[in-house]
Amino acid sequence: MKNLTSMLDIQKADTSKIDQVDFNNLVFGQVFTDHMFECDYKNGSWQTPVIKPYGNLSMPPSARVFHYGQAVFEGMKAYKDQDDQIWLFRPEENFNRINKSSERLAIPEFPKEYFFEGLETLLKMDSAWIQKGFGNSLYIRPFVMATEAGVSASPAGEYKFMIICSPAQAYYSGEVRVKFSEKFSRAADGGVGYAKAAGNYGAQFYPTNLAKEEGFQQIVWTDASTHEYLEEAGTMNVFFRIGDKLVTAPTSDRILDGVTRKSVITLAEDHHIDVEVRRVSVQEILDAAKSGELKEMFGSGTATVINPILGFGFKGEKYELPKIEDSYAKFFKDTLMKIQYNEAEDKFGWRHQVK
Amino acid sequence: MKNLTSMLDIQKADTSKIDQVDFNNLVFGQVFTDHMFECDYKNGSWQTPVIKPYGNLSMPPSARVFHYGQAVFEGMKAYKDQDDQIWLFRPEENFNRINKSSERLAIPEFPKEYFFEGLETLLKMDSAWIQKGFGNSLYIRPFVMATEAGVSASPAGEYKFMIICSPAQAYYSGEVRVKFSEKFSRAADGGVGYAKAAGNYGAQFYPTNLAKEEGFQQIVWTDASTHEYLEEAGTMNVFFRIGDKLVTAPTSDRILDGVTRKSVITLAEDHHIDVEVRRVSVQEILDAAKSGELKEMFGSGTATVINPILGFGFKGEKYELPKIEDSYAKFFKDTLMKIQYNEAEDKFGWRHQVK
Ligand SMILES: Cc1ncc(COP(=O)(O)O)c(C=O)c1O
Ligand SMILES: Cc1ncc(COP(=O)(O)O)c(C=O)c1O
Repeated sequence: MKNLTSMLDIQKADTSKIDQVDFNNLVFGQVFTDHMFECDYKNGSWQTPVIKPYGNLSMPPSARVFHYGQAVFEGMKAYKDQDDQIWLFRPEENFNRINKSSERLAIPEFPKEYFFEGLETLLKMDSAWIQKGFGNSLYIRPFVMATEAGVSASPAGEYKFMIICSPAQAYYSGEVRVKFSEKFSRAADGGVGYAKAAGNYGAQFYPTNLAKEEGFQQIVWTDASTHEYLEEAGTMNVFFRIGDKLVTAPTSDRILDGVTRKSVITLAEDHHIDVEVRRVSVQEILDAAKSGELKEMFGSGTATVINPILGFGFKGEKYELPKIEDSYAKFFKDTLMKIQYNEAEDKFGWRHQVK
Repeated sequence: MKNLTSMLDIQKADTSKIDQVDFNNLVFGQVFTDHMFECDYKNGSWQTPVIKPYGNLSMPPSARVFHYGQAVFEGMKAYKDQDDQIWLFRPEENFNRINKSSERLAIPEFPKEYFFEGLETLLKMDSAWIQKGFGNSLYIRPFVMATEAGVSASPAGEYKFMIICSPAQAYYSGEVRVKFSEKFSRAADGGVGYAKAAGNYGAQFYPTNLAKEEGFQQIVWTDASTHEYLEEAGTMNVFFRIGDKLVTAPTSDRILDGVTRKSVITLAEDHHIDVEVRRVSVQEILDAAKSGELKEMFGSGTATVINPILGFGFKGEKYELPKIEDSYAKFFKDTLMKIQYNEAEDKFGWRHQVK
């Protein structure tokens, strides 16, 4: 069935799987909604986008993505307010970023109309999957991958752009302590660190497993050349509170330009919290931890919003951060979530209603 | 049908596609043989390996490989001699390397018996696809990828190990001139450059496209920290002949430990050619090019064996290498191919017969 009011081809699922889902016991990223968005690129252009029942893909074993990791993705969320209205948070940022990532991976840009019409139609069709309640959300995963058959190491001529959605509860990742990387690195100058390239993530699993064996949940990556400067965590940018000042590393071609990160910076400035965007050396943080000046560390990212970091390790030493009353982490998390759930004024025009 | 004499489950194709193939007009990596090898990892172990008709895979859109590039591969070749005997070249090297790559990508190691029994059985079943004649071969692509469904950024619990095969003619890649990278990089210290990780390849496509616009076919990567030292090309290690001395960069955690590279080094030593394995600076090569001491450059890799490099560019300047009579490139290519095709003595025990 071709939807006449849009450029989308819509194939509705016969039945919904929603009754089989226990929304109080969701594991992150495991259950997917009834429909998915799919758009193929071939012969030099993006074909008619389709929304169809969520299901398996048929792929040749020689598809480029399996061999050369030519793939990028995004992560965003939809929220439902008390009046059943659906909201996105700064979705243009994610749209722009996926095309920026695609460019770096030699993947053709995706058209804006297709992205937004596809995404919003999908959210409306699967709106029952977005549960109300502070902390509940629908995690949205747009991604593009090279599907062309053939194992020659060159950019593909065929791609698939997809959006799949997974209901999520308030994400509590347990207590997080991080290891500052001493030997392994995530990204090189002149590399793909700033892109949400698939390969950046698989490359982190092994060092993260080693860090876990030492009792840390995540790694804060340091620059590959000297390991002297702190960059970001696996799926979060990182902030340090030294005294009452907030410090975070500048974005670069090694660091993802996080939507949550830039929102935190804006909120901090708006609340007259002193923010410094500059290189942060491991030594500075060690010194601040020892002198008691290091009050907080937290990560920022779509999945967890703000994730307090309770301690860190470096060269065999472990450091615990003090418990704190008026934490910045809590303030930013509450402030951001109230905007996201339409419970506070949207001073910066960050909310985007799906209607 | 379970093959009683082996641990393999063998499902034969009803008919062969071989008659549809024009072996005189093969595009690299486009056509695949009748069968493929597949082995799934789940519940903590590798399951019964299967050889079955080559065909599409059914994969959930949330399969980890699409999102996090948790995938590695190998490239090797089978050769047929004039007596219809089938040969592999140093296959243990590829087996060891895929497990080394897997370790770095947090993928479970693959058992040696499965690899060799699977590979050799597959080659015997599809032996008609290995064409005789110097330069003809069967390109073999083993690969492993994370297949588990679910978009959480952590190592998968399920994987698929596959071997697919594609008939190849003598690979003539046209004239190759390379750009020495000034800004982009392929690998970081402490990263995954030494692994044949899928993501390493997709990351090179965009910079390579830019180099192509400047008239180069490939990039020779330089170290990410300073761009002062030459490392390797996209799918080849690189050798420089300065006077009568052969120079190549040492392997490291940024550089792939190529099978062809190490074979060239051994052959050079055996033929009393002076080989230096040490850092090679861009400046040294520029100086040698200007003084006329730079006699040759060539790449080494399974696909092309030895690929002469006719010129290079750096910071807007282009350099052409002199034409040379007794080229090392030609000597190594001939010597290696004669060993590979069972036309010369195998002094180092590199050939492995499939029987
Ligand atoms: C490497 C990396 N850094 C930071 C972030 C946080 O970015 P955002 O706030 O846009 O979710 C993410 C997650 O998206 C990420 O993958
Ligand atoms: C990055 C890279 N360097 C070098 C090589 C050459 O290695 P080998 O001689 O083992 O084929 C390859 C190809 O396998 C490669 O992918």
